[in-house]
Formats: sequence, structure tokens, C-alpha cells
Amino acid sequence: ELVDLTCQQLTATHNSVPANKKQLPLAGQTWLITAGPTREAIDPVRYISNHSSGKMGYAIASAAQSLGADVTIISGPVNLTTPAGCRKVAVTSALEMHQQALALAASADVFVACAAVADYRISEVASEKIKKSQDSMQLNLIKNPDIVADVAAMANKPFTVGFAAETQDVEQYARDKLTRKKLDMIAANNVATAGQGFNSDDNALTVFSATDKKVLPLMSKTALAKQLVEQIQLTLQKSRGQ
Amino acid sequence: ELVDLTCQQLTATHNSVPANKKQLPLAGQTWLITAGPTREAIDPVRYISNHSSGKMGYAIASAAQSLGADVTIISGPVNLTTPAGCRKVAVTSALEMHQQALALAASADVFVACAAVADYRISEVASEKIKKSQDSMQLNLIKNPDIVADVAAMANKPFTVGFAAETQDVEQYARDKLTRKKLDMIAANNVATAGQGFNSDDNALTVFSATDKKVLPLMSKTALAKQLVEQIQLTLQKSRGQ
Repeated sequence: ELVDLTCQQLTATHNSVPANKKQLPLAGQTWLITAGPTREAIDPVRYISNHSSGKMGYAIASAAQSLGADVTIISGPVNLTTPAGCRKVAVTSALEMHQQALALAASADVFVACAAVADYRISEVASEKIKKSQDSMQLNLIKNPDIVADVAAMANKPFTVGFAAETQDVEQYARDKLTRKKLDMIAANNVATAGQGFNSDDNALTVFSATDKKVLPLMSKTALAKQLVEQIQLTLQKSRGQ
Repeated sequence: ELVDLTCQQLTATHNSVPANKKQLPLAGQTWLITAGPTREAIDPVRYISNHSSGKMGYAIASAAQSLGADVTIISGPVNLTTPAGCRKVAVTSALEMHQQALALAASADVFVACAAVADYRISEVASEKIKKSQDSMQLNLIKNPDIVADVAAMANKPFTVGFAAETQDVEQYARDKLTRKKLDMIAANNVATAGQGFNSDDNALTVFSATDKKVLPLMSKTALAKQLVEQIQLTLQKSRGQ
């Protein structure tokens, strides 16, 4: 019955205003979603980044909002319009995203870590443009904090969903990440497969929780986001014994 | 008189079709313009890049095209529409941009190197995503070829215009670059000044040739591009003894 209700709501168009927002399946829930890449400054003109359009995170935000959730997106630099009814907190670096995520997660019911966060940042950012005087150079990188793991380690943590974008052994890495970071759910995709993932309009995901595995085949990121939000909602309810 | 004619044409709207394209000041000229950033792969998901929206290069392309030039843009990844009447050659890395620039410059009258090309690339690109197993890591970088210097060194080189985006000692670096790379002209700006340069809609430039210096104050990139194209045309004619 709940699945039917959720599916009905999922097929409702995003912009339609419900007769009673409180009747929507995610009414009363606060969702926090990270999206897009981060940029790690090398000097005032150069940076390290990741391939990420932000489309998947924004589509999840839009899907959750249309089902009645109160949604905040913590977003790295992207060229996307913020979905109607969602709040956006703009950040650039992984450290900024980490700070915002930890601050806002305390009052969130669900945290979806969809951003392609830079794992490393430059150990010493140059304040002036580095001149190309040498034929080679070395960049010394240090690890950024692990945003999704730090949120999952909070005393009063939200239901925490991670992403695993891999180019090999996808399921093995995803299951390892789920356990090691104490996530409630992880959505994995193989970014080496053409036509899906980074910068594409389509994507395919395999969603793992401690007990379940669900394959969401290749489809538009908009459609995929709706199915993922549904999976999150179902697993969240199961974990709450509802 | 030529200045008047050029100014008249410059004030004509971009989309107006001239009664006779051959009467336009840049008719018969082939312009080649590089624009946007390049991306240097670290692994399949990470890269090094530069802050560059591509707006300045695209505005120069549009201004030259509207004055009658045959225009090709060699463009790194940007979120911009190619100006009407211009050809676009899409590239990602500095090596790709270098290859295209050298191939196309042989038949160009004017080459404007507006792209924010990465000075260095990763010496060994990883074919799989690098796992963040270590607390720190080093990236070994090697120098990319110098596109504008290599074009300026061609036997039958086009009139070659470079850019100098600096954060300090702007005039000194720009004049040094002009001489050292044997450019015909260089357009310099201070990217440390707020409200101009990378990702901004406005910019200010100081244009140097061997004999002249011309300050183009802060204005929209569209207006600035028109004035820069005019400066290029005037200096080109002077150099040809016209």
C-alpha cells in the first residue's frame, strides 16, 4: 500500500501543487543533499576538480521536494538551476562542503552524499599564480575529511546514503564502503561505462543496504532519482520498523 | 578614416546582415581563437583545470565574425553557445588544443590565444580511479607545450595575440612574455582585481605591442572584445604598412 502511494506520488508532475502537502509521503522530513564537484585551489587560477555536472544530486533534490520533503542542497560549482522549492547552499571546496554538511545534518532526517568531493586538497595553496619556470613540478596533496563518514558517525545521525562511483569491482567497493563508513545505504555506479554517470543525462545505479540489493537500470537521471528516493524512503521506514 | 569605419562597424549590431559582407573591415581574413580552460586528467574521474568561463574568447570570436572575419574557435569545456557564423573545434586537454592550433594556424591571418591553458599536465595518467588509501599523495606534473609561442614560431605565422593573466607585476610579466614568445601583441589583465577576469562578465585589459600601449578600462566582455578586435586590426595594418 505504501509502495502504491509512493508510486502514485512519484508519477505526479513535479510542479503540481498538492491539495494537501501534509499528505505527501515525505511530508515533515528534512532532506540534506550534496551535489556537484568540489574545487581544490592550487593557486589563484588553478584547481583540481572532478567530473560532475551535479545533475544527479539536483534530480534527487527535486524528486524528494516533490514528495513533500523540506530539501537543502549543498552544492559545488555547477551550471544548474536550483529546483523549485529547494534551498541551495553554495560551496567551492571539500572543506567548505564538510563544514556545511556537519552543521546542517544535525537537523536532517535523510542525508544523501551525491557530490563528487575531491578526496585530496593541496597541502599549501599558493597565494600568487605559480610561474611555469620549471619543466616539471610536484603537487603535494593531503586527504580531505570524509564528509559522508563524518555525518554517519554523528551521535544523532540522519539516515545516510552514500555514492560509489567506480571504474572496476563496483559491487565489492560499494559493499566495503557501506560497512566501513557505517552508511545506511549506498548507490553504486560504474563510471567507466559509456552513456552513464558523470556529465551524462542518463545513469544506472545498484543500491545496497545491509540486507538488500536493488538494481535500477539505465534511465534518465530524473526518473532514476525518483526511484532512488523511493528506495531510500522504503529502507528508512523498514529501519524505523514502520 | 579607417578608425571611423571600424568604429561604425563595431557599433552595428552583431546579428545584422551587412548589405555586402565584402565591405566589412575584416572581410577575407581568417581568425583563429582559443577559448576556455583545458582539463588535464589525473585519472578517469579527476582533473586539473583553470578558472575560465570562455566568455572573453567567445566575445572576441563574435566581434571578429560580425566584422566580416572567417572565425574558428578552438574551445575547451565551457557552457557557452557558439556565436552565430563561427566554427567550433572542441578539445579537452592542452595537448589536444596545441595539435588543433598548430594545424589550423597555418591558414590563419590572426591567432588570438585567449584560452586558459594548463601549463602542466600529469606525467602519468592513471587508467583506473586512484583509491584514497594514503593520507597524502604526490602528483608529478610535466610542462605542456606553449601553444602561443609555438604558433608565433611558425615560419608563416599569423598575427599572434597572447594573453597574460597575472596576479602581480602585470605590465612587467606581459612585456616580458611579448618579447620572449615573439608575439605581435599581448593583452594583460590582473586577475586578482575583484569584478574582472575569470568567470566575470566584465573585464579590463592593457594591450601591449612592441611600440604601443593601450588601456581598455573595465567594461562588459562584449564591449571589450570589440575594442580589442579593433586594436588588433589597427596594429595588424600598421605592421603590414597599410
